[in-house]
Amino acid sequence: MSQFSANDYQMMTRAIALAKRGRFTTAPNPNVGCVITLDNQIVGEGYHKKAGEPHAEVYALRMAGERAKGATAYVTLEPCSHYGRTPPCAEGLIKAGVARVICAMSDPNPQVAGRGFNMLREAGIDVQVGLMESDARALNPGFLKKMETQMPFVQLKMAASLDGQTALANGRSQWITGPQARQDVQAYRAVAGAILSTSQTVIEDNASLNVRWNELPSGVTDIIEPERLRQPLRAILDRQQHLNQELKLYQTGGEVIRIAEQDSELNVSADENGRLDLSQVLATLASQHQINHVWVEAGATLASAMIQQQLVDELIVYLAPKLMGADGRGLIGALGLTDMQDVIDLNIKDIRMVGRDIRIVATPQFKQK
Amino acid sequence: MSQFSANDYQMMTRAIALAKRGRFTTAPNPNVGCVITLDNQIVGEGYHKKAGEPHAEVYALRMAGERAKGATAYVTLEPCSHYGRTPPCAEGLIKAGVARVICAMSDPNPQVAGRGFNMLREAGIDVQVGLMESDARALNPGFLKKMETQMPFVQLKMAASLDGQTALANGRSQWITGPQARQDVQAYRAVAGAILSTSQTVIEDNASLNVRWNELPSGVTDIIEPERLRQPLRAILDRQQHLNQELKLYQTGGEVIRIAEQDSELNVSADENGRLDLSQVLATLASQHQINHVWVEAGATLASAMIQQQLVDELIVYLAPKLMGADGRGLIGALGLTDMQDVIDLNIKDIRMVGRDIRIVATPQFKQK
Repeated sequence: MSQFSANDYQMMTRAIALAKRGRFTTAPNPNVGCVITLDNQIVGEGYHKKAGEPHAEVYALRMAGERAKGATAYVTLEPCSHYGRTPPCAEGLIKAGVARVICAMSDPNPQVAGRGFNMLREAGIDVQVGLMESDARALNPGFLKKMETQMPFVQLKMAASLDGQTALANGRSQWITGPQARQDVQAYRAVAGAILSTSQTVIEDNASLNVRWNELPSGVTDIIEPERLRQPLRAILDRQQHLNQELKLYQTGGEVIRIAEQDSELNVSADENGRLDLSQVLATLASQHQINHVWVEAGATLASAMIQQQLVDELIVYLAPKLMGADGRGLIGALGLTDMQDVIDLNIKDIRMVGRDIRIVATPQFKQK
Repeated sequence: MSQFSANDYQMMTRAIALAKRGRFTTAPNPNVGCVITLDNQIVGEGYHKKAGEPHAEVYALRMAGERAKGATAYVTLEPCSHYGRTPPCAEGLIKAGVARVICAMSDPNPQVAGRGFNMLREAGIDVQVGLMESDARALNPGFLKKMETQMPFVQLKMAASLDGQTALANGRSQWITGPQARQDVQAYRAVAGAILSTSQTVIEDNASLNVRWNELPSGVTDIIEPERLRQPLRAILDRQQHLNQELKLYQTGGEVIRIAEQDSELNVSADENGRLDLSQVLATLASQHQINHVWVEAGATLASAMIQQQLVDELIVYLAPKLMGADGRGLIGALGLTDMQDVIDLNIKDIRMVGRDIRIVATPQFKQK
């Protein structure tokens, strides 16, 4: 027996849909949506758009006005209880006279973490938590992972022919995937706080690794205005200092930071073979650059290193309807496995056609290290 | 404006569904279904089950009895006009007094090829052709291809991890795919007239390459009785005569033929490197063994040879939710391509989960040789 009614589910579904509209602009803040109902009718709704701008509840309360008195508020995340750049939303809901607050989940932010609910309950508001929690968690994989582990959420992008090749033997690879898949990549980049790549990839492709308004799918450009388009931080592993200002990377908008052992914008340690400490890279992006969500776009070497070190949360694999032959380059590098029990299991989360290509979203199921 | 009504589509859909029930047993005959309606109600239906047994029309007419007079017959393939193992179906429809015959397609068999329609029309029956033709063609890819080109329809089965590996570097591969995918393979084998493989694959895996009743999915065992289960011919490329009677291949039901340059059950020529002429193999299976439909199940070498020689009609690719690392064995062998324009384009026909694995059905779009 659920404590929630069909109407509750419908309203929270709406609040989640609203929250999603913020996904290209809220970072490093979470995506949050809010719906206010009176007699089961929506009287106010809103979502958080950008750090420094009002929270979802503020927009919804403004729209509801006097009708917030005695109303029910559906919020995808626990209302905040602290004075940040805006006054606490819990206080706003209390002042407006809301009678009932239904939340999808509590806020793992130690500055909130139940305090928002306490404030509401102490004011006599009926508070219920847990409606559509897993859907609400999916709104903010980066925010939640960073709050919980101090590490960013990491998506690894890969693209290959159906036979797992990313380039011909001579290195040629343009284009394996079609225009719709490349648009889809633009949308993923636009969500991420940072793009992690290597100077090798940047130089080989003279890649700009930015988000280009005119290449975004309409699903994105319908939601945000061009002037709100946020460029992800481009974090480039450049151990041997090969990057130079002539590259397209530096000719396009958005910040670039080089990662090396020294004399770079992000210095990390390296192992005896000179390989940079990837875990340290991610931790530093989170702690020093407020990055919740990293999109990794590089070649097989970085891909297999990230996988072997269990640093990947989600794989986004585009498989083009092509056969290239095994004399080319493989999707990931060597993993050195000798037993089928040691292969890395994946959990397939989604599979669909993107234009003429297949897109697979999968979660690696790493064994305990 | 279509000449066919919604009711016509509904009845032909039923006839096609009936025809499909014969797919494990009719070879080398085509799958055919028939529905007879009077006043838009089904009064008779049937499908062809096995060569030598009655055709679809005979079952449907028997069931309809007197109600066939003035009725409409929906048949997925042109009724036959010649005396084979059974009297011509066109004659049966005429004798029963059917008023109208709607067919999905004409029979490319030169012994029929329009003669069935002519017989019906000469008897005053209203004949219409072309309703759901592409669905009807899909019932009989092997029968149609062999009739039209004297070559069998060839499906190439491949299975790999998501990163395109079919085995670890040490050759270990059991099991990449899960039990449902292996059941699915059993169903494909059960449809094929012959399985083409290599002695290397047979010996490495001690593979029986047969159809096992207790491993078939329920979708198959619901349709046929165990005693009607037909074993495909197992045609094994064995150039160096490595096959021996101790192998499981020979301990299991169903015929085995070895293919070599000489002293085998199917002798074909070889090129200067000793590679057997695969086109000749397929042509001989069609002409001498009445094989319409070949299921190829082997390693990367045969797979790439079949693809390079443009002998494959359909790829059935199982991708397991696993990463194995590029030090393993690739899905297909080298194709020697140097230009992205030369990669082999595929047309994705179907993509779905089969248990925990992804199954992709694709048609290669070969360029003109």
